[in-house]
Amino acid sequence: MKSMDKIVSLCKRRGFLFQSSEIYGGVQGFWDYGPLGVELKRNLKEAWWQDMIRGHNDLVTPPGAPASFEMVGLDCTIIMHPQVWKCSGHYDLFHDHMVDCRESKKRYRFDQVRGRWCERGDRKIFVSTLAEVEQEFDEVRRRAMKFFKLRAKNADELTISDESLTLDKLDDTDSVLAPDAKTLGTLTEPREFNLMFKTTLGALGGEDDTTFLRPETAQGIFVNFKNVLDSSRVKVPFGIGQIGKSFRNEITPRNFTFRSREFEQMEIEFFCPPDQSQAWYRYWRDRRMAWYTELGLSSDSLIMREHEPAELAHYSVGTADIEYAFPFLPPGEYGELEGIAHRGDFDLRSHMEGKLNPNSPAGEPMQVELNEHGKPKYRGSGKDLSYRDEATNEKFIPHVVEPSAGADRGVLAFLCEAYTEDQAPDDKGQMQTRTVMKLHPRLAPIKAAIFPLVKKDGMPEVAQEIYGELKQHMNVFYDDKGAVGRRYRRQDEAGTPFCITVDGESLSDKTVTIRDRDTLEQTRVKIDELSTALIERLG
Amino acid sequence: MKSMDKIVSLCKRRGFLFQSSEIYGGVQGFWDYGPLGVELKRNLKEAWWQDMIRGHNDLVTPPGAPASFEMVGLDCTIIMHPQVWKCSGHYDLFHDHMVDCRESKKRYRFDQVRGRWCERGDRKIFVSTLAEVEQEFDEVRRRAMKFFKLRAKNADELTISDESLTLDKLDDTDSVLAPDAKTLGTLTEPREFNLMFKTTLGALGGEDDTTFLRPETAQGIFVNFKNVLDSSRVKVPFGIGQIGKSFRNEITPRNFTFRSREFEQMEIEFFCPPDQSQAWYRYWRDRRMAWYTELGLSSDSLIMREHEPAELAHYSVGTADIEYAFPFLPPGEYGELEGIAHRGDFDLRSHMEGKLNPNSPAGEPMQVELNEHGKPKYRGSGKDLSYRDEATNEKFIPHVVEPSAGADRGVLAFLCEAYTEDQAPDDKGQMQTRTVMKLHPRLAPIKAAIFPLVKKDGMPEVAQEIYGELKQHMNVFYDDKGAVGRRYRRQDEAGTPFCITVDGESLSDKTVTIRDRDTLEQTRVKIDELSTALIERLG
Repeated sequence: MKSMDKIVSLCKRRGFLFQSSEIYGGVQGFWDYGPLGVELKRNLKEAWWQDMIRGHNDLVTPPGAPASFEMVGLDCTIIMHPQVWKCSGHYDLFHDHMVDCRESKKRYRFDQVRGRWCERGDRKIFVSTLAEVEQEFDEVRRRAMKFFKLRAKNADELTISDESLTLDKLDDTDSVLAPDAKTLGTLTEPREFNLMFKTTLGALGGEDDTTFLRPETAQGIFVNFKNVLDSSRVKVPFGIGQIGKSFRNEITPRNFTFRSREFEQMEIEFFCPPDQSQAWYRYWRDRRMAWYTELGLSSDSLIMREHEPAELAHYSVGTADIEYAFPFLPPGEYGELEGIAHRGDFDLRSHMEGKLNPNSPAGEPMQVELNEHGKPKYRGSGKDLSYRDEATNEKFIPHVVEPSAGADRGVLAFLCEAYTEDQAPDDKGQMQTRTVMKLHPRLAPIKAAIFPLVKKDGMPEVAQEIYGELKQHMNVFYDDKGAVGRRYRRQDEAGTPFCITVDGESLSDKTVTIRDRDTLEQTRVKIDELSTALIERLG
Repeated sequence: MKSMDKIVSLCKRRGFLFQSSEIYGGVQGFWDYGPLGVELKRNLKEAWWQDMIRGHNDLVTPPGAPASFEMVGLDCTIIMHPQVWKCSGHYDLFHDHMVDCRESKKRYRFDQVRGRWCERGDRKIFVSTLAEVEQEFDEVRRRAMKFFKLRAKNADELTISDESLTLDKLDDTDSVLAPDAKTLGTLTEPREFNLMFKTTLGALGGEDDTTFLRPETAQGIFVNFKNVLDSSRVKVPFGIGQIGKSFRNEITPRNFTFRSREFEQMEIEFFCPPDQSQAWYRYWRDRRMAWYTELGLSSDSLIMREHEPAELAHYSVGTADIEYAFPFLPPGEYGELEGIAHRGDFDLRSHMEGKLNPNSPAGEPMQVELNEHGKPKYRGSGKDLSYRDEATNEKFIPHVVEPSAGADRGVLAFLCEAYTEDQAPDDKGQMQTRTVMKLHPRLAPIKAAIFPLVKKDGMPEVAQEIYGELKQHMNVFYDDKGAVGRRYRRQDEAGTPFCITVDGESLSDKTVTIRDRDTLEQTRVKIDELSTALIERLG
């Protein structure tokens, strides 16, 4: 059976993923990719870059697209000018609400503090716990009884509301028993906590030098829009893609690499004429969904969640999330892999005119607040980021469709999908449970393993020659240790699609066997034709 | 003539490099890669990964190496546990010295403040300027005259020392006139300024949550040494390679991308038995030098600077820098591309035992300082990072040879090397100055451009079919705009090694011309054989 525990354990044991700084006790929300993991992640990013950017044919209209279009790449810095985040809205709006407890000195994410009303006689208190606390009802009961100094036999003196409530429904906090407090009313009013990691540029360290690690790669694309237009000869519609790290100071990182504080994104900003945005939005939504299934995610585990019109910003014609049924979620729940959003001209306009009000239908700039120098705090760049269509001579600010994927979440979904336990015969022909990572050949860290059946009779020499030849074309692995069945098992766990064995026959008829990871079928092929046969099977 | 101005201008114009956040005035020391730049940089990193890690044949002893060896990859987070930097020594030792001016409120890098003694009568002052100030003598003279309230005609009342002095030679600073001050003695004592970017983890923001953006990728490899040993079956000697971003809060970023605050490294930590370290050091030094020349850096512009034994740490058998004659440097000067250092067991031991004293011959841990919890501030992980050799049953802490390359500096060197101006005939056969980027085919962003000679007579259709076919294998570009000579020139500037033209003959005999960027030679090849011909030429 597939379970998160087994997947996490395999990832550590076989070198896919390690906790960052593990020898020092680790850091919450940070993960390192080991020797197998780094190859898997590189393959996923390379597949995205090849399929979306480098391999895109701009002369042909793809099925479902309104027109042919160009795609180019970009690679921007993680640290940018602080004004970028003031105009994008992240400086003011990218936050969670926190409450502090004056007694325990602990801090909580406001939306995660919930609880129940407890009554004894005419005294009524709200016992709060964290959303993470399992068996929350029991915990509330235990704490309420302790507070009222009751024992189990007096339990009937206590009434507990049936409904679990979130704290934001309360009018005052004086009767709230905070999650780790013994007295009432210790929680402060909720405060905003910005999720951007802050740092300081240069040695002076003044207010103007405070800047942030980017929480998304997208803004680097928007601020370079004009540079790309001026230096390439791209014409709208076209897309700019970028792969790179982003950082979010999550209060509660969890679920393995799913919610990490440092993560990698693969983002496209696709610029189109405003009247085509609906069509392009649909095109990208469908194309991105198909990309995941082509690389092996089962369509049973994948859903497209289309946001309700009421949830959308005024400028948006649509937003959809591609979600995957990660095994750490309860059945029927899905976690986001990628979001495809129509963002209108919101971002380009913000960087021209200054921060826009996302809730205003007319999309006007925010009320102008002045900074200490008497200048508007959220002023834009003042640069013209509009586009003139050469054919129609029309000038407009392009609309943007944004397919924004998480590379680490992608890796995690493919790992979860690949994890399989089945029955396969061991060296003695006995059926045994086998753990196999059924990764798509494009994603598999090792494409093929080469084994001499035994370490004698000239087999290693032949196997080593094959290995040296294949190594120039793909990542291959050589193994001559132990029984061949055990070697197969090791490669199954690593997700290697093919094992090539040099045996007694190889020396006489110059053939080897190719064993297929998933079907367990073995085929004999001529050594001369091995490389071609493999490349064909790898697709 | 090659000049830095021309190279910088071409990089911006053609989309190799842009200043980060340029529309907001830019951020000093941060650079974005445009559509051509991102492909070039990806190719360089891919070449390194293929040549050093993925394509390495571990069964064969390479020429010059003491033995065969394995290579694996790793990808660690930028933010790690703060204790990593305490043990590595970066927390205490990775700094520059700064002085503040109490009058001007400015801050200076101490080693850049210099000046001259000026005397008038019995009054003697030290007039200081910054190393960056050109015509420093005139500036000192002007400021000294102003201070003594002299005019040009009284200039002979002033005596100025001939020798330019750095501030650190002074015993007291009372008689120092700081670079932007009007009164004496305004400079503070020099203070250390750590070059690591600081940030805070989580919402609590206590002292324990302060951490840093890594200033090098190397430490991520050291702290994962045991994880890699346990999860792969690597045996010493072996190497772990990593490509990733690092950050240094440079006081004076400069010379285009050469000294950036955010940059990408390609680092190998090679672990070997202590008695082999000399031999492995020599092997890596020579192999890394050869890598640069194979990819096209001229050996005339490249030097290997071997550090003097006196410069080395006690544990090191050698350190060498591979340096390139960047055009922004005066003739005869070179800038570092890569350092190859023998680091002994210093790093692994530091992460076991706590911060070591780099100057102590016995290499013992630093004198133990206690933190506020009464625990040693620089305590190591306490984990055993030694290695047991299965064959000899010997246990030892491996020695490390570290070839550490800068990806951005590599890109910059290849761009500088590639920039060429020569004479080539235009469409009318007139010789004209041509700007051509002679990038190695492996590095070139675009491998081939496909042109229909004219936009009629069926030529575009044939060219588009060729384009679609090639696009599946490599990054190609289609261009049908303007005279073919101008199209060649655009590709020359982009560094495209081959241009393929579909002309009148193509339609009858199914051939095209391949034009070589460097030799300007044109060869006719059959369309059927084009793909093979190109792959062969691309090497």
